[in-house]
Amino acid sequence: MKLHWSPRSPFVRKVMIAAHELGLAGRIETVRTVVRMGMPHAGLLRDNPLSKIPTLVLEDGRVLFDSLTIIEYLDAQAGGGRLFPAGPARWDALTRHALGNGLLDLLVLWRNERDKPPAAQTTEWMSSFTVRTEASLDHLEREAPHLGGSSFGIGHIAIGCALSYLDFRFADLSWRTGRPALAAWHKGFAARPSARATEAADD
Amino acid sequence: MKLHWSPRSPFVRKVMIAAHELGLAGRIETVRTVVRMGMPHAGLLRDNPLSKIPTLVLEDGRVLFDSLTIIEYLDAQAGGGRLFPAGPARWDALTRHALGNGLLDLLVLWRNERDKPPAAQTTEWMSSFTVRTEASLDHLEREAPHLGGSSFGIGHIAIGCALSYLDFRFADLSWRTGRPALAAWHKGFAARPSARATEAADD
Repeated sequence: MKLHWSPRSPFVRKVMIAAHELGLAGRIETVRTVVRMGMPHAGLLRDNPLSKIPTLVLEDGRVLFDSLTIIEYLDAQAGGGRLFPAGPARWDALTRHALGNGLLDLLVLWRNERDKPPAAQTTEWMSSFTVRTEASLDHLEREAPHLGGSSFGIGHIAIGCALSYLDFRFADLSWRTGRPALAAWHKGFAARPSARATEAADD
Repeated sequence: MKLHWSPRSPFVRKVMIAAHELGLAGRIETVRTVVRMGMPHAGLLRDNPLSKIPTLVLEDGRVLFDSLTIIEYLDAQAGGGRLFPAGPARWDALTRHALGNGLLDLLVLWRNERDKPPAAQTTEWMSSFTVRTEASLDHLEREAPHLGGSSFGIGHIAIGCALSYLDFRFADLSWRTGRPALAAWHKGFAARPSARATEAADD
């Protein structure tokens, strides 16, 4: 399997954490593919016309994306049901995933906006990003005991990657302040071998 | 079930089309909730800290999002496997969904950027939006025979909603030009009772 990959994409990291958790990392050939908001990647466009990573190309040529699709595929290759709980717990896990992933979407947009010249920034967007990020973190602080009390899976991966991305790109937000339960949960996440093997690197 | 809803959100429309296809539309109480990129919605923030729609509140108070999570939940309530094929076809369906949904994400961003004062627009973004949208539409034109040949499901819903959103907000793109197979497929999509019952309205 060939994965369009970057060491700094939090969405790619979700896939690689899942691969490590499932014992499949050795079967994935990573190909460095750099994409930016304003610069589509010609080679990647052939596999994924949205020019987004992660994108997985299977041995038979079939192409899978986005990160959630790829992770559920890998989970099935490893026997199924390891990162996706069955029964009613599935909807909580998928909603947690949507929260972590949606927070990442928001943070990536925020970073793009923040890096523009001040005259090109939209004030209401910046303020909306702040409100929604703080609300998400407060929600997760209340959710932290349930995160710790449920089997590690797709929701934990997305939330862990979002918090680590805050450390990587938004250290000034000091997200741990006033959120001791979430900080403690993230400490356990970051210590997992799958998380340690996939830490973002600024290069 | 209470759904945070808007008549113009293509992501909400995905859920409502699914509900109609599954015979569950009558069980959903829609609540008009207006969200904009720069304006979080105070009431919605309590249910979904990302302030995004659709968000579904169940009778027991549990909250589900995003649209994909809600649709798979509704599918399960209707017996399961109706909008999500089993086996290897699942990955194709989820990838089609990711393409339609990713195209919608891109189009919503594009619209936000396009509506800014010219001095605040980022030229490379606008050009990237064009390249990726055209690449996605060309990909879908090649895919159209397979769309028509597979059982209607989650992938078709996302792609159909993305094409209808192009008609609604990007009529100037004339996406049908040079894409007769995709145009024919969309005609069939738009004629389904579920699509007719959920057409976007500018009000």
